[in-house]
Amino acid sequence: MARKFRTNVRVRYAETDRMGYCYYGNFATYFEVARVEALRELGVTYRQLEDDGIVLPVLDFYIKYFKPAYYDDLLTIETLVTEVRGARIHFSYKTFNESGEQLNEATTTLVFVDFSTKRPINPPAWLSKILTSCINTAD
Amino acid sequence: MARKFRTNVRVRYAETDRMGYCYYGNFATYFEVARVEALRELGVTYRQLEDDGIVLPVLDFYIKYFKPAYYDDLLTIETLVTEVRGARIHFSYKTFNESGEQLNEATTTLVFVDFSTKRPINPPAWLSKILTSCINTAD
Amino acid sequence: MARKFRTNVRVRYAETDRMGYCYYGNFATYFEVARVEALRELGVTYRQLEDDGIVLPVLDFYIKYFKPAYYDDLLTIETLVTEVRGARIHFSYKTFNESGEQLNEATTTLVFVDFSTKRPINPPAWLSKILTSCINTAD
Amino acid sequence: MARKFRTNVRVRYAETDRMGYCYYGNFATYFEVARVEALRELGVTYRQLEDDGIVLPVLDFYIKYFKPAYYDDLLTIETLVTEVRGARIHFSYKTFNESGEQLNEATTTLVFVDFSTKRPINPPAWLSKILTSCINTAD
Repeated sequence: MARKFRTNVRVRYAETDRMGYCYYGNFATYFEVARVEALRELGVTYRQLEDDGIVLPVLDFYIKYFKPAYYDDLLTIETLVTEVRGARIHFSYKTFNESGEQLNEATTTLVFVDFSTKRPINPPAWLSKILTSCINTAD
Repeated sequence: MARKFRTNVRVRYAETDRMGYCYYGNFATYFEVARVEALRELGVTYRQLEDDGIVLPVLDFYIKYFKPAYYDDLLTIETLVTEVRGARIHFSYKTFNESGEQLNEATTTLVFVDFSTKRPINPPAWLSKILTSCINTAD
Repeated sequence: MARKFRTNVRVRYAETDRMGYCYYGNFATYFEVARVEALRELGVTYRQLEDDGIVLPVLDFYIKYFKPAYYDDLLTIETLVTEVRGARIHFSYKTFNESGEQLNEATTTLVFVDFSTKRPINPPAWLSKILTSCINTAD
Repeated sequence: MARKFRTNVRVRYAETDRMGYCYYGNFATYFEVARVEALRELGVTYRQLEDDGIVLPVLDFYIKYFKPAYYDDLLTIETLVTEVRGARIHFSYKTFNESGEQLNEATTTLVFVDFSTKRPINPPAWLSKILTSCINTAD
């Protein structure tokens, strides 16, 4: 079983829209926060990774919305590393509100890139080990 | 052939990130702008639609990134209405930079909702006619 | 002495710009978060206030930047209620980074508005009491 | 008389909040767009300036709100260069809606910084000349 990371994000007023919902585009930001916090829990600081010359741009992003989030909702995002293969890493996400209702589900593919050459690279061995260890673990 | 709508969006400084790219999450906003402008070209003001009690929340969003957009890039978003069925409407999008390079492709599904009952509804006949007319038309 | 509220906000990737700084406009959002959390510490939920028909739009905002915030910085915002008079409430803010450096200082004036009439109103007595109690208190 | 620059910005759905207003913090972004477009009208591309090693961070920002902007409003921002002295440049802004109502007024101070040394520098002579020419001109 894959290791689940849980990150809390509270919906800010700035992130609501006139429909009263959390604007649909904000979840891209929330999931970025969630995966950075998942990495931090694993002892990996994404900022440090960038300072070391590795960036992780997003290759694709898919999200399916079931219910809206509202202002001031304290959301829980469940993040999983689902695959690490070559230069690519896949995450999946589920967002829940305080009543435990699932609001959406999403996936992203990111790619490790050497910032100086702008070319995909395999993650360093130590990082690869940490990341793959999340995929087959008890929660 | 489906009718293509073209909308220009210039990447704002606020929308860049420390990688120097337009942050991946901003495209959700750009596509919202693109579909609202597509509707406006069709004579439909989305604001008016909301004032008449119909809202159009997003059900799903998929985006695949090929190349980044950069600060001050004047992007062209090509928007297509790809399907109108029941209460749902599907759009597809392609983003190009000034050199004509395609930066990404995306799709969204939206649903017509009666704001007072919060339930899906078919779009009014006049609107349905306008929207479906885009699907089989010369560009 | 006025009561100081301290709120932590971590700079998100989405909030950085190509200069590598936290975009200057994001502090308006951070201060909104800070004042809402200050109210929450006082037992006041801003969401509840809105649900009760009172909204608090911003009348003015001033910010002076000393140093930039960077990606992933865990900021501390110190918030003070500096004045409550008539329908208006004044807050001041100071942002610090993890090294204790002060990054900026800011003030906002907000006004209590009856959402149904759109007119300024004095805050309810219970709220007025809570808010003014912050102005002359030991930290 | 100072030269007035006029820039149009349409309020995006993403930029509205649950109050139905354009979120107060978004004007920082709008004014950034307005001053970049003012520079462009003067033949100065801010992106080029950064590529040449000069950045223009904001030192202070003040805004006073008179009326809200709403979704889909096509705003006109009037921008003035009010002072260029040493490494600093001052802009002022007024936002109007389509009915000609003034929604707010604002000022910013920015500073020319050499990105490599991170120190304030005077703008290059050619730029200084262009900028000061705006201050005493017929509109």
